[in-house]
Amino acid sequence: MAFSEFRPLDEKVLIEYIKATPSLASKLGNKFDNLTIKEVGDGNLNFVFIVVGSSGSFVIKQALPYIRCIGESWPMTKERAYFEALALKEHGSLSPDHVPEVYHFDRTMSLIGMHYLEPPHIILRKGLIAGVEYPLLADHMSDYIAKTLFFTSLLYHNTTDHKKAVAEFCGNVELCRLTEQVVFSDPYKVSQYNRWTSPYLDSDAEAVRGDNALKLEVAELKSLFCERAQALVHGDLHTGSVMVTHESTQVIDPEFAFYGPMGFDIGAFLGNLILAFYAQDGHANDQNDRKAYKAWILRTIENTWNLFDRKFLALWDANKDSGDAYLPAIYNNPELVQLVQKKFITDLLHDTLGFGAAKMIRRIVGVAHVEDFESIADASKRAGCERRALELAKLLLKERKKFQDINEVISAILQHQ
Amino acid sequence: MAFSEFRPLDEKVLIEYIKATPSLASKLGNKFDNLTIKEVGDGNLNFVFIVVGSSGSFVIKQALPYIRCIGESWPMTKERAYFEALALKEHGSLSPDHVPEVYHFDRTMSLIGMHYLEPPHIILRKGLIAGVEYPLLADHMSDYIAKTLFFTSLLYHNTTDHKKAVAEFCGNVELCRLTEQVVFSDPYKVSQYNRWTSPYLDSDAEAVRGDNALKLEVAELKSLFCERAQALVHGDLHTGSVMVTHESTQVIDPEFAFYGPMGFDIGAFLGNLILAFYAQDGHANDQNDRKAYKAWILRTIENTWNLFDRKFLALWDANKDSGDAYLPAIYNNPELVQLVQKKFITDLLHDTLGFGAAKMIRRIVGVAHVEDFESIADASKRAGCERRALELAKLLLKERKKFQDINEVISAILQHQ
Ligand SMILES: Nc1ncnc2c1ncn2[C@@H]1O[C@H](COP(=O)(O)OP(=O)(O)O)[C@@H](O)[C@H]1O
Ligand SMILES: Nc1ncnc2c1ncn2[C@@H]1O[C@H](COP(=O)(O)OP(=O)(O)O)[C@@H](O)[C@H]1O
Ligand SMILES: [Mg+2]
Ligand SMILES: [Mg+2]
Ligand SMILES: [Mg+2]
Ligand SMILES: [Mg+2]
Ligand SMILES: [Mg+2]
Repeated sequence: MAFSEFRPLDEKVLIEYIKATPSLASKLGNKFDNLTIKEVGDGNLNFVFIVVGSSGSFVIKQALPYIRCIGESWPMTKERAYFEALALKEHGSLSPDHVPEVYHFDRTMSLIGMHYLEPPHIILRKGLIAGVEYPLLADHMSDYIAKTLFFTSLLYHNTTDHKKAVAEFCGNVELCRLTEQVVFSDPYKVSQYNRWTSPYLDSDAEAVRGDNALKLEVAELKSLFCERAQALVHGDLHTGSVMVTHESTQVIDPEFAFYGPMGFDIGAFLGNLILAFYAQDGHANDQNDRKAYKAWILRTIENTWNLFDRKFLALWDANKDSGDAYLPAIYNNPELVQLVQKKFITDLLHDTLGFGAAKMIRRIVGVAHVEDFESIADASKRAGCERRALELAKLLLKERKKFQDINEVISAILQHQ
Repeated sequence: MAFSEFRPLDEKVLIEYIKATPSLASKLGNKFDNLTIKEVGDGNLNFVFIVVGSSGSFVIKQALPYIRCIGESWPMTKERAYFEALALKEHGSLSPDHVPEVYHFDRTMSLIGMHYLEPPHIILRKGLIAGVEYPLLADHMSDYIAKTLFFTSLLYHNTTDHKKAVAEFCGNVELCRLTEQVVFSDPYKVSQYNRWTSPYLDSDAEAVRGDNALKLEVAELKSLFCERAQALVHGDLHTGSVMVTHESTQVIDPEFAFYGPMGFDIGAFLGNLILAFYAQDGHANDQNDRKAYKAWILRTIENTWNLFDRKFLALWDANKDSGDAYLPAIYNNPELVQLVQKKFITDLLHDTLGFGAAKMIRRIVGVAHVEDFESIADASKRAGCERRALELAKLLLKERKKFQDINEVISAILQHQ
């Protein structure tokens, strides 16, 4: 280990660290002249340095013992880096095409060295705001989601491996608590952290806090989140955790990873696509009414789910002798296999809609907002977009169990424009 | 520690062990003349010695690295004793009136020393077979269940404590696997361990293995069992794990304890009472038609559930500021509190009926049968009782979500006599 105790990085410390760390130094061909180091952490929590030398590059991510965008007043264990590294490696081994390779991890320094996703990779959310279509996005994301969730569930695990992994990720409890607070609690109560486009959405935010039917359903989702160890979920799979080019899709930042409900990841991704959809009217102008782009987003939502469904069931069929969940000696006829798979996917759709909706709501009336809306300068216009998204989210959350397939969800979105 | 490595107990070894163990020796007033030692393990898994001296007594339970009733051919970790001791202590602190006190635990020896439940304590199942009414049973069991489940759930725990406890009990995975096999798998497939009252129930057992609708529902229950860490459950709460007198009710043998769904415990208890009900016709004779006793069992089922419901909600109301599940700032009006509590209890009833039914089915067509039926000598008569129980269990399992309260369950039982 390069350093014997934790030190927050700056450029000077980082160079010293790299020189003392063979796995990193060798990535640069052990040449340290003309290094470019840039801190680019635009995320909410951590510091990210891009290190580029004449014969190699990497990214260094370091967790500090507090939440970056709030400051030292909101402490948060830097052990999250350990779970992020663990999840990057686990998900990376299952879906290597869509997860950056980890080169180095240092628990003392809460530091991850990983593959640098070079330009033109940008954060998906920024591409969605700019109105850029990514033709392979649905295919890639459905692949990543299907593989990471399937292979870490009891459809593939035996119980022994599963409980061991569950126990390990119970250690990431502080990050789970943060999600509990910002997703399942704060938006539904008065909290110093909540904000919204005021005064336009004052009564909308108040309505969320006063909606008994909504809060009843949120309780069920929170209990699933806290109690159901279904698969190793990324835990923060919004469109700011995905980097893209036209050809490449890469999932970063799984520091919230733990064994939780599969629908939490799928919902995060689809819910943030729905937010992007509702933000488009705020980005429309005389040159571009964004109508075609809105249709592309809806197709991407539909395709992501349908491709996920198909790929997940294909993995299930191909691995039906693995996993302790559905023994082939019991699930031993085609009708029955179809029945259990249909039920599994339908239940998962309901969870996905519930969690996706909860993630939408918290981005409109909770602490952390999304650039999709924030970048709409006209507050009244922004509030209009947000309100339509909020109404759709409340409907999805309350009525989620009535939806039978993703087309019905698309129809609901179209009716709530 | 008395011994530096594991040794299976016999009378001689046990005396040596006691003399070398102050916490046990002192319970006997350090007097070792005239000790009576009796091995009474009538259970399926372990060895139990009753030790009585002139000035004190206790029970010694030892786990061996296999399943007693099957033999060394079915290995089973003796670490189960560690989790049994942990659960006895945890549940004992929450419900001291209904759990025997642990005097001593030795992990190396897989050995628990605990309070001797003296005669006239007998195993509840034996009392039920004999037709003895226990007027306090419903009150006591509802108390035990309500307290142990409430205080180990997120209704009382914060997430940090909860995940820590969940992770610890993930270690009891071998016992969870045994339950998976004997409760959720073997009865629904051909297995060398399955048996039933043959030839009478041959086609009934075959029907269970061929029932797609039933196997669809069993999958959902198994997934809850494997994935949902709702509370520290006893894990084997049948009527053979309860010792009773007219005044006392004591729960023993939580070696299957883990964080699982609450309904698994309540279902085990009620399901075994329902088995006792269906066995009564086999015990009826000219002196006693058992009609009054059957009515008492049904009242006990009804009262146990209804008292549980009332006590559990009273604990919830009294501790509404504790626990991370339902923050008072969100669940902040009486109508909403009533809504969430009603939903919680109704969902729990459905889980209870599902698990209870699964436990009934496995006792009729799986490996381990119950004395309630086994003690009916006439095989044809026994098969009749078992068939009626099996039919009711299949109905409960498949239709569980249609039941709104326990009275509807009682009616269904009365209709399936
Ligand atoms: N492997 C990488 N390659 C290129 N850029 C990266 C990489 N990892 C992170 N980044 C950049 O750093 C930003 C913050 O990283 P992220 O892991 O999301 O941190 P946080 O946990 O603080 O949100 C990303 O939005 C992205 O712009
Ligand atoms: N504390 C106790 N006091 C009196 N008898 C006990 C006690 N614990 C166990 N026994 C007797 O030993 C039997 C087996 O104990 P149990 O804990 O159920 O073992 P197993 O795990 O093998 O089923 C019980 O049925 C009961 O008769
Ligand atoms: Mg991020
Ligand atoms: Mg992050
Ligand atoms: Mg399988
Ligand atoms: Mg027992
Ligand atoms: Mg036992």
